[in-house]
Amino acid sequence: MSPATQTLNDVNIGAVANLIGAIEADPAKADTQWRATVTWLGGFRTEAKIRGFAPISSDEPAGLGGTDTAPNPVEQVLAALGNCLAVGYAANATARGIELTALRIDISGPVDLHTFLGLREGHAGFSDVRADVFLESPAEQSEIFALHDHVLSTSPVGHTIKAAVPVTISLAV
Amino acid sequence: MSPATQTLNDVNIGAVANLIGAIEADPAKADTQWRATVTWLGGFRTEAKIRGFAPISSDEPAGLGGTDTAPNPVEQVLAALGNCLAVGYAANATARGIELTALRIDISGPVDLHTFLGLREGHAGFSDVRADVFLESPAEQSEIFALHDHVLSTSPVGHTIKAAVPVTISLAV
Repeated sequence: MSPATQTLNDVNIGAVANLIGAIEADPAKADTQWRATVTWLGGFRTEAKIRGFAPISSDEPAGLGGTDTAPNPVEQVLAALGNCLAVGYAANATARGIELTALRIDISGPVDLHTFLGLREGHAGFSDVRADVFLESPAEQSEIFALHDHVLSTSPVGHTIKAAVPVTISLAV
Repeated sequence: MSPATQTLNDVNIGAVANLIGAIEADPAKADTQWRATVTWLGGFRTEAKIRGFAPISSDEPAGLGGTDTAPNPVEQVLAALGNCLAVGYAANATARGIELTALRIDISGPVDLHTFLGLREGHAGFSDVRADVFLESPAEQSEIFALHDHVLSTSPVGHTIKAAVPVTISLAV
Protein backbone atom coordinates (compact mmCIF):
# COMPACT_ATOMS: atom_id res chain seq x y z
CA MET A 1 0.00 0.00 0.00
CA SER A 2 1.44 3.42 -0.88
CA PRO A 3 1.76 6.07 1.82
CA ALA A 4 -0.90 8.13 0.04
CA THR A 5 -3.54 5.50 0.65
CA GLN A 6 -2.64 4.31 4.15
CA THR A 7 -5.53 4.90 6.51
CA LEU A 8 -4.44 3.30 9.80
CA ASN A 9 -6.24 5.13 12.64
CA ASP A 10 -8.20 6.96 9.92
CA VAL A 11 -5.14 9.22 9.57
CA ASN A 12 -4.08 10.39 6.11
CA ILE A 13 -0.42 9.70 6.82
CA GLY A 14 0.38 10.29 3.15
CA ALA A 15 -0.48 13.98 3.60
CA VAL A 16 1.90 14.15 6.57
CA ALA A 17 4.62 12.36 4.57
CA ASN A 18 4.09 14.79 1.70
CA LEU A 19 4.43 17.75 4.08
CA ILE A 20 7.63 16.32 5.55
CA GLY A 21 9.03 15.84 2.04
CA ALA A 22 8.09 19.39 1.08
CA ILE A 23 9.76 20.80 4.22
CA GLU A 24 12.91 18.74 3.64
CA ALA A 25 13.07 20.25 0.14
CA ASP A 26 12.24 23.76 1.38
CA PRO A 27 12.60 24.34 5.15
CA ALA A 28 10.66 27.62 4.93
CA LYS A 29 7.52 25.54 4.36
CA ALA A 30 7.68 24.65 8.09
CA ASP A 31 7.01 28.29 9.02
CA THR A 32 3.30 28.40 9.73
CA GLN A 33 1.29 31.34 11.00
CA TRP A 34 -1.95 31.00 13.00
CA ARG A 35 -4.63 33.53 13.84
CA ALA A 36 -7.81 34.13 15.80
CA THR A 37 -10.04 37.19 16.17
CA VAL A 38 -11.94 37.72 19.40
CA THR A 39 -14.99 39.95 19.72
CA TRP A 40 -16.40 41.08 23.07
CA LEU A 41 -20.17 40.55 23.27
CA GLY A 42 -20.82 42.30 26.60
CA GLY A 43 -20.31 41.07 30.14
CA PHE A 44 -17.73 38.31 30.09
CA ARG A 45 -19.18 36.80 26.90
CA THR A 46 -16.80 36.73 23.96
CA GLU A 47 -16.33 34.70 20.82
CA ALA A 48 -13.22 33.74 18.89
CA LYS A 49 -13.39 33.38 15.11
CA ILE A 50 -10.89 31.10 13.42
CA ARG A 51 -10.91 30.92 9.62
CA GLY A 52 -14.44 30.09 8.48
CA PHE A 53 -15.45 27.98 11.47
CA ALA A 54 -18.26 28.61 13.92
CA PRO A 55 -16.89 30.83 16.69
CA ILE A 56 -15.57 29.43 19.96
CA SER A 57 -17.80 30.97 22.63
CA SER A 58 -16.43 31.94 26.01
CA ASP A 59 -17.94 33.10 29.30
CA GLU A 60 -17.23 32.84 33.02
CA PRO A 61 -19.06 30.93 35.76
CA ALA A 62 -21.54 32.95 37.82
CA GLY A 63 -19.21 32.88 40.82
CA LEU A 64 -16.65 34.77 38.74
CA GLY A 65 -19.21 37.32 37.54
CA GLY A 66 -20.17 35.67 34.25
CA THR A 67 -23.37 34.20 32.90
CA ASP A 68 -21.92 30.69 32.50
CA THR A 69 -22.98 30.16 28.88
CA ALA A 70 -19.69 28.58 27.72
CA PRO A 71 -16.32 27.28 28.94
CA ASN A 72 -13.99 29.97 30.23
CA PRO A 73 -10.58 30.81 28.77
CA VAL A 74 -8.48 28.77 31.18
CA GLU A 75 -10.64 25.72 30.48
CA GLN A 76 -10.11 26.37 26.76
CA VAL A 77 -6.34 26.19 27.28
CA LEU A 78 -6.75 22.76 28.84
CA ALA A 79 -8.98 21.70 25.94
CA ALA A 80 -6.35 22.89 23.44
CA LEU A 81 -3.65 20.92 25.24
CA GLY A 82 -5.70 17.73 25.24
CA ASN A 83 -6.68 18.15 21.61
CA CYS A 84 -3.02 18.73 20.68
CA LEU A 85 -1.77 15.69 22.58
CA ALA A 86 -4.44 13.53 20.93
CA VAL A 87 -3.30 14.65 17.47
CA GLY A 88 0.25 13.86 18.50
CA TYR A 89 -0.63 10.30 19.54
CA ALA A 90 -2.73 9.73 16.41
CA ALA A 91 -0.08 11.12 14.02
CA ASN A 92 2.91 9.39 15.54
CA ALA A 93 1.15 6.09 16.24
CA THR A 94 0.16 5.99 12.57
CA ALA A 95 3.68 6.87 11.39
CA ARG A 96 4.96 3.95 13.53
CA GLY A 97 2.30 1.51 12.33
CA ILE A 98 0.63 1.39 15.77
CA GLU A 99 -3.13 0.93 15.85
CA LEU A 100 -5.06 2.97 18.42
CA THR A 101 -8.39 1.54 19.52
CA ALA A 102 -9.29 4.30 21.99
CA LEU A 103 -7.74 7.44 23.42
CA ARG A 104 -8.99 9.74 26.18
CA ILE A 105 -7.09 12.47 27.95
CA ASP A 106 -8.13 14.11 31.23
CA ILE A 107 -6.49 17.50 31.74
CA SER A 108 -6.58 19.59 34.88
CA GLY A 109 -4.80 22.42 36.58
CA PRO A 110 -5.09 24.93 39.42
CA VAL A 111 -5.31 28.71 39.14
CA ASP A 112 -4.89 30.94 42.20
CA LEU A 113 -7.26 33.86 41.55
CA HIS A 114 -5.41 36.38 43.75
CA THR A 115 -3.48 37.88 40.84
CA PHE A 116 -6.38 37.88 38.36
CA LEU A 117 -8.51 39.71 40.91
CA GLY A 118 -5.81 42.29 41.60
CA LEU A 119 -5.31 41.14 45.20
CA ARG A 120 -1.58 40.62 44.72
CA GLU A 121 1.08 40.75 42.03
CA GLY A 122 2.65 37.68 40.47
CA HIS A 123 1.72 34.76 38.28
CA ALA A 124 -1.94 34.83 37.24
CA GLY A 125 -1.94 31.61 35.23
CA PHE A 126 -1.95 27.89 35.91
CA SER A 127 0.67 26.98 38.50
CA ASP A 128 0.94 23.63 36.73
CA VAL A 129 -1.03 21.47 34.32
CA ARG A 130 -1.57 17.73 34.48
CA ALA A 131 -2.73 15.37 31.72
CA ASP A 132 -3.70 11.73 32.29
CA VAL A 133 -3.68 9.76 29.06
CA PHE A 134 -5.78 6.60 28.67
CA LEU A 135 -4.68 4.85 25.51
CA GLU A 136 -5.87 1.48 24.20
CA SER A 137 -3.85 -0.36 21.56
CA PRO A 138 -2.89 -3.92 20.65
CA ALA A 139 0.76 -2.77 20.38
CA GLU A 140 3.50 -3.79 22.82
CA GLN A 141 3.71 -1.66 25.95
CA SER A 142 7.30 -0.68 25.11
CA GLU A 143 6.12 0.69 21.76
CA ILE A 144 3.38 2.68 23.48
CA PHE A 145 5.79 4.20 25.97
CA ALA A 146 8.20 5.12 23.15
CA LEU A 147 5.28 6.74 21.33
CA HIS A 148 4.34 8.60 24.52
CA ASP A 149 7.89 9.93 24.97
CA HIS A 150 7.93 11.14 21.39
CA VAL A 151 4.57 12.92 21.75
CA LEU A 152 5.76 14.75 24.87
CA SER A 153 8.84 16.02 23.06
CA THR A 154 6.91 17.30 20.02
CA SER A 155 3.62 18.81 21.27
CA PRO A 156 3.08 22.39 20.04
CA VAL A 157 0.55 23.28 22.75
CA GLY A 158 2.43 21.34 25.45
CA HIS A 159 5.60 23.26 24.63
CA THR A 160 3.74 26.59 24.42
CA ILE A 161 2.57 26.08 28.01
CA LYS A 162 5.74 24.63 29.49
CA ALA A 163 8.15 27.07 27.83
CA ALA A 164 8.32 30.82 28.44
CA VAL A 165 6.83 32.11 25.17
CA PRO A 166 7.04 35.89 24.62
CA VAL A 167 3.58 37.50 24.48
CA THR A 168 3.30 41.00 23.04
CA ILE A 169 -0.01 42.79 23.57
CA SER A 170 -0.47 46.13 21.82
CA LEU A 171 -3.31 48.55 22.38
CA ALA A 172 -4.71 50.64 19.53
CA VAL A 173 -7.19 53.10 20.99
CA MET B 1 -26.47 52.08 43.27
CA SER B 2 -25.18 49.13 45.26
CA PRO B 3 -22.37 47.00 43.83
CA ALA B 4 -24.78 44.09 43.53
CA THR B 5 -26.86 45.90 40.92
CA GLN B 6 -24.15 47.68 38.89
CA THR B 7 -24.36 46.62 35.27
CA LEU B 8 -21.82 48.83 33.48
CA ASN B 9 -20.57 46.92 30.41
CA ASP B 10 -23.22 44.31 31.23
CA VAL B 11 -20.78 42.98 33.84
CA ASN B 12 -22.11 41.76 37.18
CA ILE B 13 -19.38 43.52 39.10
CA GLY B 14 -21.20 42.73 42.34
CA ALA B 15 -20.41 39.05 41.87
CA VAL B 16 -16.74 39.89 41.39
CA ALA B 17 -16.79 42.14 44.47
CA ASN B 18 -18.45 39.34 46.46
CA LEU B 19 -15.75 36.89 45.33
CA ILE B 20 -13.00 39.34 46.30
CA GLY B 21 -14.61 39.77 49.71
CA ALA B 22 -14.90 36.02 50.16
CA ILE B 23 -11.23 35.51 49.24
CA GLU B 24 -10.10 38.28 51.56
CA ALA B 25 -11.97 36.49 54.38
CA ASP B 26 -10.69 33.05 53.33
CA PRO B 27 -7.70 33.06 50.94
CA ALA B 28 -8.23 29.35 50.15
CA LYS B 29 -11.32 30.39 48.14
CA ALA B 30 -8.89 31.71 45.49
CA ASP B 31 -7.67 28.17 44.79
CA THR B 32 -9.64 27.11 41.73
CA GLN B 33 -9.29 23.87 39.79
CA TRP B 34 -10.18 23.53 36.10
CA ARG B 35 -10.70 20.45 33.95
CA ALA B 36 -11.32 19.22 30.42
CA THR B 37 -11.70 15.72 28.98
CA VAL B 38 -10.61 15.05 25.42
CA THR B 39 -11.79 12.11 23.35
CA TRP B 40 -10.13 11.02 20.12
CA LEU B 41 -12.67 10.48 17.32
CA GLY B 42 -10.33 9.02 14.68
CA GLY B 43 -7.90 10.74 12.34
CA PHE B 44 -6.97 14.09 13.84
CA ARG B 45 -10.55 14.77 14.96
CA THR B 46 -11.01 15.16 18.70
CA GLU B 47 -13.42 16.86 21.05
CA ALA B 48 -12.93 18.42 24.45
CA LYS B 49 -15.73 18.28 27.01
CA ILE B 50 -15.87 20.96 29.69
CA ARG B 51 -18.55 20.72 32.38
CA GLY B 52 -21.94 20.36 30.66
CA PHE B 53 -21.14 22.45 27.58
CA ALA B 54 -21.17 21.33 23.96
CA PRO B 55 -17.73 19.91 23.17
CA ILE B 56 -14.99 22.00 21.57
CA SER B 57 -14.21 20.21 18.30
CA SER B 58 -10.70 20.06 16.91
CA ASP B 59 -9.13 18.90 13.64
CA GLU B 60 -6.17 19.80 11.44
CA PRO B 61 -6.05 21.41 7.99
CA ALA B 62 -5.73 19.03 5.04
CA GLY B 63 -2.12 20.09 4.48
CA LEU B 64 -1.32 18.77 7.95
CA GLY B 65 -3.14 15.48 7.35
CA GLY B 66 -6.50 16.39 8.86
CA THR B 67 -9.99 16.76 7.48
CA ASP B 68 -10.29 20.47 8.34
CA THR B 69 -13.61 20.25 10.15
CA ALA B 70 -12.66 22.54 13.07
CA PRO B 71 -9.92 24.88 14.34
CA ASN B 72 -6.72 23.14 15.33
CA PRO B 73 -5.22 23.10 18.83
CA VAL B 74 -2.71 25.92 18.31
CA GLU B 75 -5.50 28.14 16.98
CA GLN B 76 -7.51 27.24 20.09
CA VAL B 77 -4.68 28.53 22.29
CA LEU B 78 -4.84 31.88 20.47
CA ALA B 79 -8.63 31.91 20.92
CA ALA B 80 -8.24 31.23 24.64
CA LEU B 81 -5.75 34.08 24.99
CA GLY B 82 -8.01 36.54 23.20
CA ASN B 83 -11.06 35.44 25.19
CA CYS B 84 -9.07 35.81 28.43
CA LEU B 85 -7.79 39.27 27.58
CA ALA B 86 -11.32 40.38 26.68
CA VAL B 87 -12.61 39.24 30.07
CA GLY B 88 -9.73 41.10 31.68
CA TYR B 89 -10.61 44.37 29.94
CA ALA B 90 -14.33 43.96 30.67
CA ALA B 91 -13.81 43.11 34.35
CA ASN B 92 -11.25 45.77 35.11
CA ALA B 93 -12.89 48.48 33.03
CA THR B 94 -16.07 47.89 34.97
CA ALA B 95 -14.27 47.90 38.32
CA ARG B 96 -12.78 51.29 37.33
CA GLY B 97 -16.07 52.72 36.08
CA ILE B 98 -14.86 52.78 32.47
CA GLU B 99 -17.46 52.16 29.77
CA LEU B 100 -16.42 49.98 26.83
CA THR B 101 -18.30 50.53 23.60
CA ALA B 102 -16.42 47.95 21.51
CA LEU B 103 -13.53 45.55 21.93
CA ARG B 104 -11.85 43.32 19.35
CA ILE B 105 -8.57 41.47 19.70
CA ASP B 106 -6.56 39.98 16.82
CA ILE B 107 -4.16 37.27 17.98
CA SER B 108 -1.47 35.61 15.90
CA GLY B 109 1.69 33.63 16.22
CA PRO B 110 4.15 31.48 14.28
CA VAL B 111 4.87 27.78 14.76
CA ASP B 112 7.88 26.13 13.11
CA LEU B 113 6.67 22.60 12.29
CA HIS B 114 10.12 20.97 12.26
CA THR B 115 9.84 19.74 15.86
CA PHE B 116 6.19 18.64 15.65
CA LEU B 117 7.03 16.60 12.55
CA GLY B 118 10.05 14.98 14.21
CA LEU B 119 12.53 16.63 11.84
CA ARG B 120 14.55 18.10 14.69
CA GLU B 121 14.52 18.42 18.47
CA GLY B 122 13.65 21.62 20.28
CA HIS B 123 10.70 23.88 20.90
CA ALA B 124 7.54 22.67 19.15
CA GLY B 125 5.24 25.50 20.21
CA PHE B 126 4.67 29.12 19.31
CA SER B 127 7.95 31.04 19.12
CA ASP B 128 5.97 34.11 20.20
CA VAL B 129 2.39 35.33 20.34
CA ARG B 130 1.09 38.77 19.42
CA ALA B 131 -2.24 40.35 20.32
CA ASP B 132 -3.52 43.61 18.83
CA VAL B 133 -6.28 45.12 20.93
CA PHE B 134 -8.84 47.50 19.41
CA LEU B 135 -10.78 49.12 22.22
CA GLU B 136 -13.41 51.85 21.97
CA SER B 137 -14.39 53.85 25.02
CA PRO B 138 -15.36 57.40 25.92
CA ALA B 139 -12.79 57.29 28.75
CA GLU B 140 -9.56 59.31 28.78
CA GLN B 141 -6.67 57.70 26.93
CA SER B 142 -4.57 57.69 30.11
CA GLU B 143 -7.26 55.67 31.86
CA ILE B 144 -7.37 53.20 28.96
CA PHE B 145 -3.61 52.71 29.02
CA ALA B 146 -3.66 52.19 32.79
CA LEU B 147 -6.43 49.61 32.28
CA HIS B 148 -4.35 47.94 29.56
CA ASP B 149 -1.28 47.72 31.81
CA HIS B 150 -3.37 46.17 34.56
CA VAL B 151 -4.89 43.57 32.20
CA LEU B 152 -1.43 42.52 30.98
CA SER B 153 -0.24 41.98 34.54
CA THR B 154 -3.26 39.89 35.56
CA SER B 155 -4.19 37.66 32.57
CA PRO B 156 -4.39 33.96 33.50
CA VAL B 157 -3.98 32.71 29.93
CA GLY B 158 -1.41 35.38 29.05
CA HIS B 159 0.68 34.36 32.04
CA THR B 160 0.23 30.64 31.30
CA ILE B 161 1.77 31.21 27.86
CA LYS B 162 4.50 33.64 28.81
CA ALA B 163 5.66 31.80 31.92
CA ALA B 164 7.25 28.35 32.04
CA VAL B 165 4.38 26.34 33.52
CA PRO B 166 5.19 22.73 34.49
CA VAL B 167 3.24 20.21 32.42
CA THR B 168 3.03 16.62 33.66
CA ILE B 169 1.68 14.05 31.21
CA SER B 170 1.11 10.53 32.54
CA LEU B 171 0.27 7.50 30.46
CA ALA B 172 -2.05 4.79 31.77
CA VAL B 173 -1.98 1.90 29.30
